[in-house]
Amino acid sequence: MTLNEVTISRAILEEQHQAIIDYLEMDAAVVGGGPSGLACAALLGEKGVKCALIEKKLSIGGGMWGGGMMFPRIVVQDEARRLLDRFGITYREFEPGYYVAKSVETVSKLTAAACDAGVEFFNLTTVEDVMIRGDGRVGGLVINWTPVDMAGLHVDPLTVACTCTVDATGHDAMVARMIERKGGRLQVKGESFMWAERAESQILDHTREVFPGLFVTGMAANAVAGECRMGPIFGGMLLSGERAADLVAARLGR
Amino acid sequence: MTLNEVTISRAILEEQHQAIIDYLEMDAAVVGGGPSGLACAALLGEKGVKCALIEKKLSIGGGMWGGGMMFPRIVVQDEARRLLDRFGITYREFEPGYYVAKSVETVSKLTAAACDAGVEFFNLTTVEDVMIRGDGRVGGLVINWTPVDMAGLHVDPLTVACTCTVDATGHDAMVARMIERKGGRLQVKGESFMWAERAESQILDHTREVFPGLFVTGMAANAVAGECRMGPIFGGMLLSGERAADLVAARLGR
Amino acid sequence: MTLNEVTISRAILEEQHQAIIDYLEMDAAVVGGGPSGLACAALLGEKGVKCALIEKKLSIGGGMWGGGMMFPRIVVQDEARRLLDRFGITYREFEPGYYVAKSVETVSKLTAAACDAGVEFFNLTTVEDVMIRGDGRVGGLVINWTPVDMAGLHVDPLTVACTCTVDATGHDAMVARMIERKGGRLQVKGESFMWAERAESQILDHTREVFPGLFVTGMAANAVAGECRMGPIFGGMLLSGERAADLVAARLGR
Amino acid sequence: MTLNEVTISRAILEEQHQAIIDYLEMDAAVVGGGPSGLACAALLGEKGVKCALIEKKLSIGGGMWGGGMMFPRIVVQDEARRLLDRFGITYREFEPGYYVAKSVETVSKLTAAACDAGVEFFNLTTVEDVMIRGDGRVGGLVINWTPVDMAGLHVDPLTVACTCTVDATGHDAMVARMIERKGGRLQVKGESFMWAERAESQILDHTREVFPGLFVTGMAANAVAGECRMGPIFGGMLLSGERAADLVAARLGR
Amino acid sequence: MTLNEVTISRAILEEQHQAIIDYLEMDAAVVGGGPSGLACAALLGEKGVKCALIEKKLSIGGGMWGGGMMFPRIVVQDEARRLLDRFGITYREFEPGYYVAKSVETVSKLTAAACDAGVEFFNLTTVEDVMIRGDGRVGGLVINWTPVDMAGLHVDPLTVACTCTVDATGHDAMVARMIERKGGRLQVKGESFMWAERAESQILDHTREVFPGLFVTGMAANAVAGECRMGPIFGGMLLSGERAADLVAARLGR
Amino acid sequence: MTLNEVTISRAILEEQHQAIIDYLEMDAAVVGGGPSGLACAALLGEKGVKCALIEKKLSIGGGMWGGGMMFPRIVVQDEARRLLDRFGITYREFEPGYYVAKSVETVSKLTAAACDAGVEFFNLTTVEDVMIRGDGRVGGLVINWTPVDMAGLHVDPLTVACTCTVDATGHDAMVARMIERKGGRLQVKGESFMWAERAESQILDHTREVFPGLFVTGMAANAVAGECRMGPIFGGMLLSGERAADLVAARLGR
Amino acid sequence: MTLNEVTISRAILEEQHQAIIDYLEMDAAVVGGGPSGLACAALLGEKGVKCALIEKKLSIGGGMWGGGMMFPRIVVQDEARRLLDRFGITYREFEPGYYVAKSVETVSKLTAAACDAGVEFFNLTTVEDVMIRGDGRVGGLVINWTPVDMAGLHVDPLTVACTCTVDATGHDAMVARMIERKGGRLQVKGESFMWAERAESQILDHTREVFPGLFVTGMAANAVAGECRMGPIFGGMLLSGERAADLVAARLGR
Amino acid sequence: MTLNEVTISRAILEEQHQAIIDYLEMDAAVVGGGPSGLACAALLGEKGVKCALIEKKLSIGGGMWGGGMMFPRIVVQDEARRLLDRFGITYREFEPGYYVAKSVETVSKLTAAACDAGVEFFNLTTVEDVMIRGDGRVGGLVINWTPVDMAGLHVDPLTVACTCTVDATGHDAMVARMIERKGGRLQVKGESFMWAERAESQILDHTREVFPGLFVTGMAANAVAGECRMGPIFGGMLLSGERAADLVAARLGR
Repeated sequence: MTLNEVTISRAILEEQHQAIIDYLEMDAAVVGGGPSGLACAALLGEKGVKCALIEKKLSIGGGMWGGGMMFPRIVVQDEARRLLDRFGITYREFEPGYYVAKSVETVSKLTAAACDAGVEFFNLTTVEDVMIRGDGRVGGLVINWTPVDMAGLHVDPLTVACTCTVDATGHDAMVARMIERKGGRLQVKGESFMWAERAESQILDHTREVFPGLFVTGMAANAVAGECRMGPIFGGMLLSGERAADLVAARLGR
Repeated sequence: MTLNEVTISRAILEEQHQAIIDYLEMDAAVVGGGPSGLACAALLGEKGVKCALIEKKLSIGGGMWGGGMMFPRIVVQDEARRLLDRFGITYREFEPGYYVAKSVETVSKLTAAACDAGVEFFNLTTVEDVMIRGDGRVGGLVINWTPVDMAGLHVDPLTVACTCTVDATGHDAMVARMIERKGGRLQVKGESFMWAERAESQILDHTREVFPGLFVTGMAANAVAGECRMGPIFGGMLLSGERAADLVAARLGR
Repeated sequence: MTLNEVTISRAILEEQHQAIIDYLEMDAAVVGGGPSGLACAALLGEKGVKCALIEKKLSIGGGMWGGGMMFPRIVVQDEARRLLDRFGITYREFEPGYYVAKSVETVSKLTAAACDAGVEFFNLTTVEDVMIRGDGRVGGLVINWTPVDMAGLHVDPLTVACTCTVDATGHDAMVARMIERKGGRLQVKGESFMWAERAESQILDHTREVFPGLFVTGMAANAVAGECRMGPIFGGMLLSGERAADLVAARLGR
Repeated sequence: MTLNEVTISRAILEEQHQAIIDYLEMDAAVVGGGPSGLACAALLGEKGVKCALIEKKLSIGGGMWGGGMMFPRIVVQDEARRLLDRFGITYREFEPGYYVAKSVETVSKLTAAACDAGVEFFNLTTVEDVMIRGDGRVGGLVINWTPVDMAGLHVDPLTVACTCTVDATGHDAMVARMIERKGGRLQVKGESFMWAERAESQILDHTREVFPGLFVTGMAANAVAGECRMGPIFGGMLLSGERAADLVAARLGR
Repeated sequence: MTLNEVTISRAILEEQHQAIIDYLEMDAAVVGGGPSGLACAALLGEKGVKCALIEKKLSIGGGMWGGGMMFPRIVVQDEARRLLDRFGITYREFEPGYYVAKSVETVSKLTAAACDAGVEFFNLTTVEDVMIRGDGRVGGLVINWTPVDMAGLHVDPLTVACTCTVDATGHDAMVARMIERKGGRLQVKGESFMWAERAESQILDHTREVFPGLFVTGMAANAVAGECRMGPIFGGMLLSGERAADLVAARLGR
Repeated sequence: MTLNEVTISRAILEEQHQAIIDYLEMDAAVVGGGPSGLACAALLGEKGVKCALIEKKLSIGGGMWGGGMMFPRIVVQDEARRLLDRFGITYREFEPGYYVAKSVETVSKLTAAACDAGVEFFNLTTVEDVMIRGDGRVGGLVINWTPVDMAGLHVDPLTVACTCTVDATGHDAMVARMIERKGGRLQVKGESFMWAERAESQILDHTREVFPGLFVTGMAANAVAGECRMGPIFGGMLLSGERAADLVAARLGR
Repeated sequence: MTLNEVTISRAILEEQHQAIIDYLEMDAAVVGGGPSGLACAALLGEKGVKCALIEKKLSIGGGMWGGGMMFPRIVVQDEARRLLDRFGITYREFEPGYYVAKSVETVSKLTAAACDAGVEFFNLTTVEDVMIRGDGRVGGLVINWTPVDMAGLHVDPLTVACTCTVDATGHDAMVARMIERKGGRLQVKGESFMWAERAESQILDHTREVFPGLFVTGMAANAVAGECRMGPIFGGMLLSGERAADLVAARLGR
Repeated sequence: MTLNEVTISRAILEEQHQAIIDYLEMDAAVVGGGPSGLACAALLGEKGVKCALIEKKLSIGGGMWGGGMMFPRIVVQDEARRLLDRFGITYREFEPGYYVAKSVETVSKLTAAACDAGVEFFNLTTVEDVMIRGDGRVGGLVINWTPVDMAGLHVDPLTVACTCTVDATGHDAMVARMIERKGGRLQVKGESFMWAERAESQILDHTREVFPGLFVTGMAANAVAGECRMGPIFGGMLLSGERAADLVAARLGR
């Protein structure tokens, strides 16, 4: 068999084109590919929800790659150990209740799980704005290529429709903030001081639908609520992703 | 159980410290976490070789995340399909002999496989130089934190020892070029024009020990040889990684 | 009729996807959308050649928008006046033989003419390399999104096939230089001092096939030949574009 | 005939100097060369209004060159199809009521039409401020070379007088914002969320004289009104440009 | 004896790792290595307080290295001369009551004194946030590598616990401002105009515990209080550091 | 006593002016304030040589502040332990023959020792060129403020005269390279690969007068000789500084 | 005579040192070397006032060098023609009452006049703050080298005392704004729209002591007052400088 | 009289346009406005030569504004004192034969003298290339606006004709280097080490016609010749400017 460069180009273009067209309308869009977004998307996919994960950067994984201060290890507490098991992530018990996993393994296993669950990934894609029609719900996302923004170019975006949106953009709570900035009824209070115990115990309560059609998970949930931050412990992140997936699925009637 | 931030910090520091100390001396160091480096490291790990993958960036995966022109799909030809199967990567046949996989899934599955095989990852780590003692072999790597370099700071590096080094740094063949630049007997000819057919068929020949202790794989192999480039088809990358793993294992007597 | 954002997105994606797929194989690719490239592409299109113009920047027109020193006027001499007429560009006689046109009008009329002639435009697209297979001819171009390069990202390119390539990239003669840099038998001598008379009179001789499959036009022709430069007089540019179109058409048997 | 470089320089300098002097006083200045500005200027020119288009960038066309997400296609709905026809822009019906045109062709044809209508273009020209004398009307524009600002230099501007000014600067509504910032009675509410249907249906109402002597068109009209945005559908842009031309002409008594 | 690079690496890693682990919990953390922070830390160390100095930059010494306008001399008045003597810093009397020392010597002697007093230094370390648990006290610091921030990377921090924190970050009063920004009851008024006499006479009063667990010293004390600035006279800086050390020691019951 | 800001300014200006004037002519100028430069300057000062240390940066200490990979510890071997003792630097034996010191303490004690020995420091001062008169010796240095260069300004330098110059600028061997670049008979071979054992054992031989009037020490000595590099072990650095001091003193007849 | 580089250095250092020491206390400091500052300083010098002009940039002249839009000509109206004559600046009458001068000549003649009048120039000097002691007057300026700020370095400033300060910093009114920002009773309203007639007629009224010890002149006067701007007509600038000189001299009792 | 902004604009445009048109053909173009260029231009003007000075920056004066190391004083030796007198520059004798002048005064007086001698200044103007027609002489200059280059824009230049060109661009000898780079028979050896005595004594010999039509003066003369540099002594600069003026005038037959 002789390889043809044009066939390679066509294969990539046709396949991805079909994926984009398929996902112009979807059940759920998860914005942000950190731990809570990945967990949420993977679990939504497992429930049969048509779900895409939209990530601004080239790589998936967000802030988890670097562990704590570039030491690529993360900690998960007892309550969330079952999620490590579920996603096949290995860990070691450091002290009773403190489990240490490798950040590289955690990211790759979560991502692989989401892929296996049928989640479609759109990386290098920035969410510029939301679509809110007459019903006052977030009904879609206005997206663009990230490099367009990085290069300071002026290029119009496109729009995708989604029944539910999950803001998993971390501290910045970027989707929620867009709505706040343009006058939507939603306040992003910003994360408070470090207090892991409190942050981890409250995050599930803060994981909720904060605006019609918009759910928040992970640090975005705590940031909207003005809750404390927790540092490189990720149990709450994963559990919050799970909770968000449950809420979205319920809303979609799955 | 009450979470303690200091215990979290200590858990991360102790675990990663132990990993660094363990890997100050290793069998094989793979430099660069793109497809050929990941495949090589995963297969070395499966053979029981004590192996670390050293990646300059925060995330693992190199140039594969973006597929072709930001359309996150890659193509693999027939000869390498068995490696997709081996790593559990799904694909679709586009035309006879052309299999299309998702780039996000490919990266995450390769990385997960390397983790499962016991490979240790050191990301955000730049290889500044090599250690060559009296025997004239590349016997170690001089490493530093990548952000130190990005921030233009002047901080001394540290050294790790490794019996074999694999240059999987892509087009730049950075380890090979360091040796060339400092007068080692090694010429990096640079990649030639695009010709996928030829590039893919020759890459296995170019995957070899190019300097005592230094092996090249993937585009680094073609770059050293002055061979053509192949674009977003990745069969040769994976097969070259496999070949490099075989060569290194043989050298180590596994 | 109610407007649907998703239909708008789909319309754009489907139409442009079809265009890209159609042009994965073409007769002629003109690289660079300055005056000579535009004239060449327009005239090729008129001859029924399947031709695309690939432009690195967001806008078409190259260095002509700014006239001379930001005074948006250009000069055309007698020999080329008929081309102004052909493209419907108005002008005023300044002194006998010196015709002054507006740069904005010249760019827009040349571009419009190329559109009317069926030329397909790919803007924001960088030519990274050429495809040269066993026959030693430039048989295709390796392209990428310009913002990928501007943002310093590492993303693989795609390849398009073309029977003939026209380097209309101006002073830099970028396609020719790529071939020279990688060892192709071709020397780019670089433009010489300003001497409008000589530069204008020689440019047609320099407009030729400089490497199998690669034609040069405009300042790229003079740069390859080491010829003088001419400043903001554009007759030679247009005539060179016309000549390149004739040569390419002849090669294609039109 | 022998070409003389000095004659070329003189030709450009004399012709453009005359144009600048002629346009130190004009009927209408359109600020911004995107679709609504171009349509407005072209139609004003056709009505015999002495009109200049002032564009900050080197090229004319604004954000339209890139289509949607760098796919260079735009959509126009039924109501505005007649304007495509009027400017000679070709299109294809994608679905009933959705017409797709090429962005490169649309820009170049609109620009060519404005040239043919006698509009004078001043590109690379930034509007720094407005002139408001005792009558409280915007009676002129304070302009400078754009590169002066890009290079961070301190150079004084010049002033041109115009009876009417059209702010066609897009989302930023830059002229309107200048007036707001310096305490003029005018509020720029900023564009709201994406909702194409509403944005397109309301834009004509928002196209109006928002301050004595200052008219707004295109996204600048919607931005002043706090109206929704519409993405890469351009019918409303063109119709708004047409409306602005009508209003300005009426004010000028044409 | 043969030198082994790996032993060198291990020596550095093991020793510093032990230091970090030891200082995950400490009595006092001084943030900022300028004159007041150094004096405070040195004197705390002399009192047997387990104390670390955390400095954002690579080098210790802050703004003192440059003297006044890059003339590397500083002035100390009579009241603080005894501290110069205590730290072994030489000086010359310029006019009665005005003693001139070399800035390089002053920095190095202060730093050496702190080292001799057992202070542990963490340089290139940025304080990102504070830990405030249920008791409402600043009970720890959230730290990260400075180059991570300089390089614009997204990496999680770690946390260290400290009974008392001293903000010695100069004009910016960075720790105090973090607390203010996140809603803690604390106002940073910002430094006022230059008035050396007043600034020097008031600084001791402003050196105090401004929030439970947080003490301010040096220009940070004056900045919180809205006090005047004093320029390159350093008596008040040193005396304020001494005062802060006394207050912290008292709080710790030493 | 009332503090007067003008007296403070005058004190600084007068004292430093006198220092500059005094050092317009000196016995020895040490360029670069890293470990070898500091040791050399301190020991020259102790021998009664009129010596200044010229440092490009604001702070003294060079690359030693960061230890190895930002872990602020350094290693010194047995042969150089006596120099740690001489400068009062504390250390711990890690393994027989490997002594670990803190980088912050080492820098500050070396600097303090140089101050005590009467060395004058000129920081923020860049050496732009050397003065070589008719005798062919390096007889002086052409200096400028570092910020002038950092800010890209064009300001003329001044000249200081010195009988001997010591290049202690590290890997770059900047003074030696200036001479090489302008055609002086001197070749800077550049540092070779990492090999601590060899680098440490050869550095004393490479510490010598490499051009009339110019001595090299520390990594500059190894860089001129094309010798190996040694990483974060500093015994050779200190011994080389001592050797350079001896050579310079001998040349000066002390 | 043989030239000695060290003597050249000493000559420059001694002369300028004496100038700085002499001007640590002065009658009047003019901040900003544009047309109004130069005129003010020149006329103060002629009145025998001990006056320095402090300019942030390397060159004197401010925004006048570039004329209008880089065409280096300026206009002066009838009322100020006598000042052109007084400073020996040549001009041509363009229309009755409009005199055109060359910007390069205007700057150089004004600067030369200030030199002849005994004004001392401190260029590359930034005013960071003001000194306000117990009497509530601006009694001095806190200055630093401009390149220190451009290079982002942290270096302490020095202080000079002056009985009167003139803010001639143009649109920014930088001295006045410092006082406003730190809570001094002074409001800078910011310049209004372009209206040359009004701006020129009101500027003399706005030229006054706006805070004890601080006078404003030129565009700084109009900016404080919220007055209109005037563009490249400079009569008001010169007259305002003259007025400021009169007011300062009166205050000083000359 | 009522001021009209449009009249002001027209006055500036008309006057400068006339100047540009007048100087499209001239006797002599001096490139670079430092001391030697200013002296040369002033003396050429006094001889009645139609001469323009073309300066890249906004301000005239080059590197002289900053004196030595930002201390704004310069030194002139005995031989050139008559030129200080001629241009009305005051000075003080520091030691016999060493005269110190203020750099600000020197620049402004030299510039004023050139203005009085009828020299036309084109500032913010970059020389991009030279015009060399069939006679092999430098017969003109290819110029552009400097901000175009600073902003990285692509805009064509214009051409002016001049019988003689003087390269007064300092160390870079930019005009001479252009010719060298494009293959003209001319070698720029680059300035050598600092040796004021030699540099000053040789500069007059190096001031000569180095290529048909191109003269060099000041540091450009020494740089072409590979001569030593001299630092902040300016006698040779002024004398070299005088010599260049004599040579050019002779060539022009004045």
